[in-house]
Amino acid sequence: MNDLLDLDKKLIWHPFTPLVSEISPILIEKAEGVYLHTADGRKIIDAISSWWVNLHGHGHEYIAKAISAQAMKMEHVIFAGFTHEPAIRISQRVLSILPDNQVKIFYSDNGSTAVEVAIKMALQYWHNNNHTKKRVIALEGAYHGDTFGAMSVAERGPFNAAFQSHLFNVEFIPFPTEENFEEVKRKLFALTQSKDVAAFIYEPLLQGTAGMRMYSEEMLDEMISIAHQNETLCIADEVLTGFGRTGKLFASLYCKNQPDIMCLSKGITGGFMPFGATTCNQKVLSAFESSESIKTLYHGHSYTANPISCAAANASLDLLLSADCRESLIRINISHKKFIERVKSERIKDIRCLGTVMAVELKDEGNASYFSALRKIIYPYFLKKNILLRPLGNIIYILPPFVIKDEELEIIYNEIENFLKMDFNPVE
Amino acid sequence: MNDLLDLDKKLIWHPFTPLVSEISPILIEKAEGVYLHTADGRKIIDAISSWWVNLHGHGHEYIAKAISAQAMKMEHVIFAGFTHEPAIRISQRVLSILPDNQVKIFYSDNGSTAVEVAIKMALQYWHNNNHTKKRVIALEGAYHGDTFGAMSVAERGPFNAAFQSHLFNVEFIPFPTEENFEEVKRKLFALTQSKDVAAFIYEPLLQGTAGMRMYSEEMLDEMISIAHQNETLCIADEVLTGFGRTGKLFASLYCKNQPDIMCLSKGITGGFMPFGATTCNQKVLSAFESSESIKTLYHGHSYTANPISCAAANASLDLLLSADCRESLIRINISHKKFIERVKSERIKDIRCLGTVMAVELKDEGNASYFSALRKIIYPYFLKKNILLRPLGNIIYILPPFVIKDEELEIIYNEIENFLKMDFNPVE
Repeated sequence: MNDLLDLDKKLIWHPFTPLVSEISPILIEKAEGVYLHTADGRKIIDAISSWWVNLHGHGHEYIAKAISAQAMKMEHVIFAGFTHEPAIRISQRVLSILPDNQVKIFYSDNGSTAVEVAIKMALQYWHNNNHTKKRVIALEGAYHGDTFGAMSVAERGPFNAAFQSHLFNVEFIPFPTEENFEEVKRKLFALTQSKDVAAFIYEPLLQGTAGMRMYSEEMLDEMISIAHQNETLCIADEVLTGFGRTGKLFASLYCKNQPDIMCLSKGITGGFMPFGATTCNQKVLSAFESSESIKTLYHGHSYTANPISCAAANASLDLLLSADCRESLIRINISHKKFIERVKSERIKDIRCLGTVMAVELKDEGNASYFSALRKIIYPYFLKKNILLRPLGNIIYILPPFVIKDEELEIIYNEIENFLKMDFNPVE
Repeated sequence: MNDLLDLDKKLIWHPFTPLVSEISPILIEKAEGVYLHTADGRKIIDAISSWWVNLHGHGHEYIAKAISAQAMKMEHVIFAGFTHEPAIRISQRVLSILPDNQVKIFYSDNGSTAVEVAIKMALQYWHNNNHTKKRVIALEGAYHGDTFGAMSVAERGPFNAAFQSHLFNVEFIPFPTEENFEEVKRKLFALTQSKDVAAFIYEPLLQGTAGMRMYSEEMLDEMISIAHQNETLCIADEVLTGFGRTGKLFASLYCKNQPDIMCLSKGITGGFMPFGATTCNQKVLSAFESSESIKTLYHGHSYTANPISCAAANASLDLLLSADCRESLIRINISHKKFIERVKSERIKDIRCLGTVMAVELKDEGNASYFSALRKIIYPYFLKKNILLRPLGNIIYILPPFVIKDEELEIIYNEIENFLKMDFNPVE
């Protein structure tokens, strides 16, 4: 085990991780249900679904078998000029559960690329229609991925400080709250009225990386309405919120007004393998429905619509649409709400939930951000208790696999309560 | 079958494919060895390895079984703060066959993201060292992927016309040839001398999308040397050239001078599933070896180092390093060279090969580019003969799975000869 960890330290550059750290990564040998089994015999509850991807528990045999069968039959084939049944099947099924207006699906390999494709669809929509609309509007606090296009439409900050002069300019409007919503609407209206705005991109109802910030469907409905009034395409980044995470199959389904373009990834394969998709409505599509080669969307990845990923997605969708899973979504939400009712602590600044996601925002003397000093206390505290929580600065959130049991939720809630009672020093 | 194709047409947006076309995609039911089996009973030779990814033939049981076993054991776990044996193993093995100077590996999901990570490493290297070097140099004709960063460092043209105002500026130097090499060196020297150049990115020895254009290792060695003299980081995009495609395990291994950063994908899983990696030398790494959070590379994808992808990569590497496979690389190269000797046609402008890749460049009255009218004749001609060749405009190339047999190569060569004898009209 130590040999492996030495090799890891020597050879591997982990994502979002400082290269010099006193903490070694934890070696996982097996994963089952909500548990990660460590090489030294611990069982850790994966309360964040391994970066928000896992839906039905780790090692779910039904999905594993679908992957296995597909790998044996047809692992991959070029998706330009060729097609296959696993892709056609998942396309039909995903489009059938998305908002009605979504008619076409384009595949890629992860959330960042799903967003890149969405931005390209929106920009080329106007280009193909001989308009000069080129500006994009995003929300303050937005996170849409780590590639240059995805970074461009996200909040400027420490994550992308080294690359800012290489990002394209974007107009930001404030994250909507009860207090500022009139101002948000005014700004959105003024920007979209200016006639050179191509698209408005947003994480619907739930801004993940910014700290599991939530806003209401009424607000989103009004914002989409303003954008549409002023001929601006709306892009919903449902990479986090899709596939049941917010209680409905997609966060956009809470709204009356629908996006023109949607980005999907993470939960799409139930947490088994990389896969991404971008969908659009007929309006967007129409700008590309031409045999002129100049109007083609020249985007593609070698493994576009990989049959094994499609098979995983099809199997995961079977589980997601089962009565059991639907009940779990409701059960988890009720459980979160009960905890919110019961938990009392002066340390809590705000506590909120949406579907299966619950966030506890702690008061922080210092900078309440991703880099809050509290993070350095919270993460190891829970890990010591065999619970994987990965706080966003001063925000503890639970975002569990849907198969988590009430008893397992209770273990996490209790530990959060214990933590809140603890005498910790945030500037440790 | 027709029902499936109707659904495909209605629902799926294929990569690099016009939305309106008289040609339906071909429905594939099974893939085995070098053959794609169509739903209507044809067997098509996959002479381009399904967009340059397949190494050991389709449906290779050894890789399929490795995928299956890993999916059953541990499908995925967050790679920040956690690690696992399949990732450690593939890291050690890939780094052991890369040029000696490569010491650390960062994972992502495809070639575009591997390039995005490379660009970010290079820019942040200078940023962390408090330098203001920000410009990137690329080769004319370059293709590095379809995300905004990858598009930025690629040739401007029809592929990215709609997005040009959203790409960051890059300095281009001509693709090196016998004729222009002195000029290329002068330009590279002048640019890198200017002190604000962060990196030089190139496809080593073989520019794929530009038309399988080849240049010598001596030229590349000189270019790397000039860049290094002037404190410019070198990024080798080995997404196409890696894992044996050019005869050696990596094209960079033909050279004396080595890149600082390397991008890998495509063949890494033997063509089974999406996976990407970016590696670097100690010099690059040193700029990030700090516990300061501001010096961290904030990049990550949810499925970073997906264990199933790692298992596929480990199995593919077993096969790649086998004596059989090494012999195949030599055998295919000899076979290509013999064909080059024997084929005679006035239609040929140039014919060339590197390792397992052979390209026949046809004379073209019109525009010799990706959009050459010849493409519309060549592609269906070979498909009718049950051979998948996907010409780059007027350039026919063979880039086969390494398990292709001599008889199968002969079928392709013969059909190319037949095609060259045909009386076709390029402006049809």
